[in-house]
Amino acid sequence: MRQLLPNALEDVIEQLGNLPGVGIRTAERYATHLLRADDRNVQKLAASLATLHKKVKYCPVTFAYINDDQTVSPLYSDSDRDKSLIAVVEEPLDIVALERTNQYMGTYHVLGGAISPIDGIGPEQLHIPELVERIKSDQVIEVIIATNASVEGESTALYLQRYLSEQGVVVKMSRLARGLPVGVDLEYADQITLTHALEGRKTI
Amino acid sequence: MRQLLPNALEDVIEQLGNLPGVGIRTAERYATHLLRADDRNVQKLAASLATLHKKVKYCPVTFAYINDDQTVSPLYSDSDRDKSLIAVVEEPLDIVALERTNQYMGTYHVLGGAISPIDGIGPEQLHIPELVERIKSDQVIEVIIATNASVEGESTALYLQRYLSEQGVVVKMSRLARGLPVGVDLEYADQITLTHALEGRKTI
Repeated sequence: MRQLLPNALEDVIEQLGNLPGVGIRTAERYATHLLRADDRNVQKLAASLATLHKKVKYCPVTFAYINDDQTVSPLYSDSDRDKSLIAVVEEPLDIVALERTNQYMGTYHVLGGAISPIDGIGPEQLHIPELVERIKSDQVIEVIIATNASVEGESTALYLQRYLSEQGVVVKMSRLARGLPVGVDLEYADQITLTHALEGRKTI
Repeated sequence: MRQLLPNALEDVIEQLGNLPGVGIRTAERYATHLLRADDRNVQKLAASLATLHKKVKYCPVTFAYINDDQTVSPLYSDSDRDKSLIAVVEEPLDIVALERTNQYMGTYHVLGGAISPIDGIGPEQLHIPELVERIKSDQVIEVIIATNASVEGESTALYLQRYLSEQGVVVKMSRLARGLPVGVDLEYADQITLTHALEGRKTI
């Protein structure tokens, strides 16, 4: 079919269409929104994107996102963070979720994903050796395995548990509690969540 | 709260959050996708966005999107398009939808929106005087009012019909047919659509 839209607009639509979950209609909607928006805002977005990769690095210890002028994540280097406690998460943004609770003063370790044979992700692609290294060098007392409550997250947690004991790493290991989330009616809770909630019940 | 993500990443998240229907979680998902993507693709997107406004213009006759090196839309200037027939649409992308049918060989006129008092859009903000001008200068025989099948689209169609006759413009006017879309079960069709389908029934 002949081309119906200006090349520049087609380019933007095609590239926005590569974002996760964005189809052609959504990409068209985003592109025409940007075309109608103030060009200064579009320029700002273009400039931010152009420097994104250069300005964001991974912390070499925790694999959290850091600024390019930082050598290590402040969530690790800060003296008020308890280095003997590590929360192991799948992705860098999981750190943000845990930090928002304002309840955790330990450090983090980002695995960089979860074991998922279907997506071709095996344990060798995750930052597991670096975790073992940290547990030894920082005299870690407890590792909280804070992977997602998904099949992949569970498999990863099980693998980690087995792997660490195989490596002779002696450390207390824990998992985030499973149970009813806030605001959920029993009636609407799924069976597995309710089973977890029963098993993990607390004496009051 | 202290800043938990690198500035450059926060910038991208904030700006992607301005896209229509994109909340903070979706913006975070897009931004981390771009951070994991090949930087060359991100640079390409940045470059496309930087030149978007400069490279896309509005056709001064039809108000369709055109390349910056075009003076008028090829859907108007092409000699095989019937200039005595105008389809009046709300937005430039509506042209793409109609062209995809491969059934229409007339020209287009983009109003630039629809009358919507709640959004502060009155007829004076739409390209209506330019339409009157075209109808006169191009000796137009028929105007197909192809606005959306929404309240605003209907109001705009009614307004246009009244306005053109008030201006003494003598032209055949038509609306796109209303009825059952392809693949819909009667059972699930809404009352108004069914009413339209009954009223517009065809003898076979």
